[in-house]
Amino acid sequence: MNKNHLNPQKSISTFSKSSSEKFFSCNPWLLFFNNNKMSYQIFLLKPNDIILFNNSSRIYIILMGSLIITKVFKSTHKITLNLLTVGDTFGQLEVANDNFYYEAEAIGKTKIACINYNNIIRACSNYPPFNLFFVNHLICRSEKAYHFVEIISHKSITSRLVSLLLLLAEQNGTQINSGIILNFTITHKMLARIIGGSRVSVTRILSELLKTKLISIQKKKIIIHSPILLSQRILNK
Amino acid sequence: MNKNHLNPQKSISTFSKSSSEKFFSCNPWLLFFNNNKMSYQIFLLKPNDIILFNNSSRIYIILMGSLIITKVFKSTHKITLNLLTVGDTFGQLEVANDNFYYEAEAIGKTKIACINYNNIIRACSNYPPFNLFFVNHLICRSEKAYHFVEIISHKSITSRLVSLLLLLAEQNGTQINSGIILNFTITHKMLARIIGGSRVSVTRILSELLKTKLISIQKKKIIIHSPILLSQRILNK
Repeated sequence: MNKNHLNPQKSISTFSKSSSEKFFSCNPWLLFFNNNKMSYQIFLLKPNDIILFNNSSRIYIILMGSLIITKVFKSTHKITLNLLTVGDTFGQLEVANDNFYYEAEAIGKTKIACINYNNIIRACSNYPPFNLFFVNHLICRSEKAYHFVEIISHKSITSRLVSLLLLLAEQNGTQINSGIILNFTITHKMLARIIGGSRVSVTRILSELLKTKLISIQKKKIIIHSPILLSQRILNK
Repeated sequence: MNKNHLNPQKSISTFSKSSSEKFFSCNPWLLFFNNNKMSYQIFLLKPNDIILFNNSSRIYIILMGSLIITKVFKSTHKITLNLLTVGDTFGQLEVANDNFYYEAEAIGKTKIACINYNNIIRACSNYPPFNLFFVNHLICRSEKAYHFVEIISHKSITSRLVSLLLLLAEQNGTQINSGIILNFTITHKMLARIIGGSRVSVTRILSELLKTKLISIQKKKIIIHSPILLSQRILNK
């Protein structure tokens, strides 16, 4: 796999206040940071770029795109823990030890903001409305992991893949005439990584979904014609 | 299954301040509620007692025992979303609609405290140290779901069951001479529910683990002799 191990220190392009306001004027986090002169950094990630969580002192906010969170057991295997998208945050996981560490890997073009956790905590004590916003965000965050549990609770790879496509359509899809189109291209390899299957199985299942016209591909992007018909391919116990 | 659909209104036994202090004098939540005269309720659950989440206005704090959180798709199937234990909280999930609702089901004898979410939010604005405690708790809560993801990310039922036994030993086990003994009895049916397998498979796998002396049973409680040896039964991709 083409893994670009990203050094956060190197790839920072700090936005000026005016340009960040232009791009993300409706992002509540950045609006708050800008209004209160809190410093943060913007990272731009290409597909398969990786951020290693080497300490728990930062919080990362996804401004655009999607990432997977992976627990890497050194020199043995990886487990995908979650799939995050715009508005989600990560960081502050249990401190990695000699046996494992965490990675966040971009699925498509992804933009994230990074801020020190201590600054967030200070803002919580100084600005009660931000505190309420942050608490509500954290409540949603713990719920968000359950969406991923629903995908991988299936033992069958077909059910996992179909559940994943439905979640991606909901979180990162745009309604068009023929159905819902995913906002980014995603490789079979990445789909396999997310659901814990092989690339070969993903290719086989997608071909079958294409043949039965449940999905189609337009400019390398997946279109789901009817989420209801597709969801009937999930085998429920 | 012997399901006692619990009506929260009926089974409340509100502890007096003095008795709750006696029982849970070191529980940080109850200490705080008592010191600040915040009213809460205590629920006592027997194995398989169920709390339905019919609204999102309450937060439940586990004082003793363990629960599973389940998403119930009406008249079709259930998915186990998480396994919670002492110190964990639940409530405030997305509001159930006509297609699904949530349940929390006690595994063993379980004691939980229940408080209105609005009171927690009010306490956050009035008491900064409590706010910090609550924010840190929520950060841990979103991490906690990842422990469960690690169990069910396995497609093999043996790997899921072994991972579950290791997590239970870590969260609800007591070190004894011969290994780690689980603090409660758990039925094969419940183990199967948690990992999304059949009762028959669980019984077969446990018999095999007993035969190979990786586990043993003492007064209906499972003893894990060596977590390291047991963990070698997990098939990693």
